[in-house]
Amino acid sequence: MSTTTPATNHQIRLASRPHGLPTRDNWSFTTEPVAEPAEGGVLVKTLSLSLDPAMRGWMNEGKSYIPPVGIGEVMRAGGVGRVVASKNPDFTVGDAVYGTLGVQEYVLVERDAIRRNGLTRIDLRAGTVGQWLNVLGMPGMTGYFGLMDVGQPKAGETVVVSGAAGAVGQTVGQLAKIKGCRVVGIAGGKAKCDWVVNELGFDACIDYKAGPGAVRAGLKEHCPGGVDIYFDNVGGEILDDVLARINRKARIIICGAISQYNNTTPVQGPKNYLSLLVNRARMEGIVVFDYADRYHLAVAELAGYLKSGQMKSREDTVVGLDTFPETLTKLFSGENFGKLVLQVANE
Amino acid sequence: MSTTTPATNHQIRLASRPHGLPTRDNWSFTTEPVAEPAEGGVLVKTLSLSLDPAMRGWMNEGKSYIPPVGIGEVMRAGGVGRVVASKNPDFTVGDAVYGTLGVQEYVLVERDAIRRNGLTRIDLRAGTVGQWLNVLGMPGMTGYFGLMDVGQPKAGETVVVSGAAGAVGQTVGQLAKIKGCRVVGIAGGKAKCDWVVNELGFDACIDYKAGPGAVRAGLKEHCPGGVDIYFDNVGGEILDDVLARINRKARIIICGAISQYNNTTPVQGPKNYLSLLVNRARMEGIVVFDYADRYHLAVAELAGYLKSGQMKSREDTVVGLDTFPETLTKLFSGENFGKLVLQVANE
Repeated sequence: MSTTTPATNHQIRLASRPHGLPTRDNWSFTTEPVAEPAEGGVLVKTLSLSLDPAMRGWMNEGKSYIPPVGIGEVMRAGGVGRVVASKNPDFTVGDAVYGTLGVQEYVLVERDAIRRNGLTRIDLRAGTVGQWLNVLGMPGMTGYFGLMDVGQPKAGETVVVSGAAGAVGQTVGQLAKIKGCRVVGIAGGKAKCDWVVNELGFDACIDYKAGPGAVRAGLKEHCPGGVDIYFDNVGGEILDDVLARINRKARIIICGAISQYNNTTPVQGPKNYLSLLVNRARMEGIVVFDYADRYHLAVAELAGYLKSGQMKSREDTVVGLDTFPETLTKLFSGENFGKLVLQVANE
Repeated sequence: MSTTTPATNHQIRLASRPHGLPTRDNWSFTTEPVAEPAEGGVLVKTLSLSLDPAMRGWMNEGKSYIPPVGIGEVMRAGGVGRVVASKNPDFTVGDAVYGTLGVQEYVLVERDAIRRNGLTRIDLRAGTVGQWLNVLGMPGMTGYFGLMDVGQPKAGETVVVSGAAGAVGQTVGQLAKIKGCRVVGIAGGKAKCDWVVNELGFDACIDYKAGPGAVRAGLKEHCPGGVDIYFDNVGGEILDDVLARINRKARIIICGAISQYNNTTPVQGPKNYLSLLVNRARMEGIVVFDYADRYHLAVAELAGYLKSGQMKSREDTVVGLDTFPETLTKLFSGENFGKLVLQVANE
C-alpha cells in the first residue's frame, strides 16, 4: 500500500430494517482502519457507487434472489474503484475495477472473496466511471439481457418501457430502437419525457405524473397497434394499464416494481393478468446475475454504440458518502434524472 | 333428412348479460323448425354438450380471445352429435361429429360455417361421447398443449394442478405422471382428492376446502422441493399460495381463473407475482384454438393412454337440455365431479 493511503475507512452499515421508506435512522456510520491485503487479496478505493432500486429489497428480511444484508453489515452496493494495493497477480495498483464494493471508502477483498464480489478490471476508455455503473454496468446488463433474451424483440414491434429515463430504461429503449422497434417510454415529468424523446430518440414518452388516466390515454395514443414487449420496472397501476393493451404473444419482462418496494401494505398484484391468457402472452422475471458469463459480449456491443453515438447515457451524480441515506431515497420519489450515482472519491 | 327427424328444435339463447353468477333469467328458451341443409350443408343432432368455465367469459361483453355471444343468440357450446342429414361429401348420415353445436337439439351447419364451427368427424371407438368432450376434446387438448408446449415438463419435476378433478386438471395430472413428473393436485373436498390420488395416481392432492391455510400447508408438505410447473385453472388465493413456492425457472400456465369469473368486484391480481422475478420464472397464457392443427396428434396419443388404461377419465353427466342454466352453475360451486357434460339426446 502506498504511504498516502489514509488510515481510516468510513462505512455505512444497515442498523435496522426499514418499514416503508428507509430513513437516516436505519443506518449507522462507522470508521475502521484500512488494513493491508493478505496474500491473494486486493485493496480497492471506492470512486463511485451505483444506487439502485434493488437495494431496497436487500434491506428486507427473507428469501430473495440473494440473501438480505445483515443488520450491522456494510450496505451492499456495486461500484467502480481503483486498486490501491494488491497481492494478487490479476490486479495491479492503478487498475480500475468494478465489483460489489459496499457503501464505504475502501474495501479489502481477500482472495476467496474476489469472485464472490465480482471484482473485474474495467477499461475506462470504453466508458466513464458513470457509464460503467450505468449502460456498461448492472443496469445496462439488466436491460440488455432482459430485452434481448427474455423479450426477444423483432424489428417493427412496439416496445414500452417504464422508468424510461432511469438506468435500465434508457438502455432498454435505445437498444430497442437500434433493433428496429417502435419505442414508447413511460417516465415522471415533462423534463424526463422530453429528454427521452429528443435526446435518446424514443418515438414517444408518456408522463405518468400528468394526471389520472395519463398512462392509459398515452398508451392508446402512442401504441395504436398494441404492445408487443413491455419492460416493467415499476409494477402497480402502470403494469395493469399496459396489460390491457398487449398484443397476442406479447412478452412482459418483470425487472422490478419500484412503485411497490416501500409499501407497508401487500404488493398490488396485476388485476389484469388474465390478459396473459386472452393474448397467449408471457410474463417473465429476470435477474441479471444469470447472464454473468455473457456480460463481456453485451459490454462490447453497448460500448460500440456509445462510441458511435448511437447510444447516449445520463447519470445523476451526487457527491459524498455521507449523503447516502437521502440520496438513495431519490430513487423512490423519482427525483433522480438518469442513473443515480454516488461519487465517493474523485480519484 | 329422415322422416323421423322431429320438426322442432329447442334452443337456449343468451337473454341478458349476467352480473355475477348467471341465473335462469339470463336465458331465453326458444323453439324453431328444423330446416333442411342447403347444398354443402349438414344437419347435426346434438347428443351431448360440453359445459366449461370458459362459457362464463363468453357471456361478457368486450374483447377476449373470441367474440362474446350476442344477446339473443343461441349460447355457444362445443358438443358431440350425429349427422342426420348431409349435402356435403365430407359427411355421411350417421357420422359422429364434434363441433361448436350450441345449446340446442339440432344445428344446421351451412357449407361456409363448417370450418368456423370446427365440425369434425370423430371415431367413437377411440372414446365414448363423454370422453370426446373430456380428455379427447377441448379440455384434453387444453391440458395437453398447456402442459407440453407451455409447461415443457421434464421427468422428475414437480407439477401442481388446480381443478385437479375437473376436465382439464385430470388430463394434465395424468399426463404429467406419464411424463415422469411428481404430481400434486388441488381440488375441493375429500371425495375428489381421494379419487385423484387413488384412481388417477397423483402423488398427492390438497383439499382447498379443508380450511384456511390448507393450500399453503399442503404445498409445504407435498412439494418439499418446490414447484416447477403450476397449471392454473382457478386464480385467486391459490395462485398466490403457489407463487410463494415456485422454483427457479418455474412455468405457470394460465389456463383459467374460475375463482374470479363471477366476481362483481375487480379480478384479484396475484400479489406474489414478484416471485416471478426472484425465481426468473414465467407465467404464460394458453388458448387451445392455437393448436388446432395438432389436435389429431394429441388425440392419438391420449386415446392410446385411454386404451392401455394408463389414463382414466370421469364425466359428470346431467341429462336434459332444459337443465342447462342450473347445470352450468355447478362448475362455479365446484359441485361437479369430473368433466361436466349435458346430455341432450341418448342417440
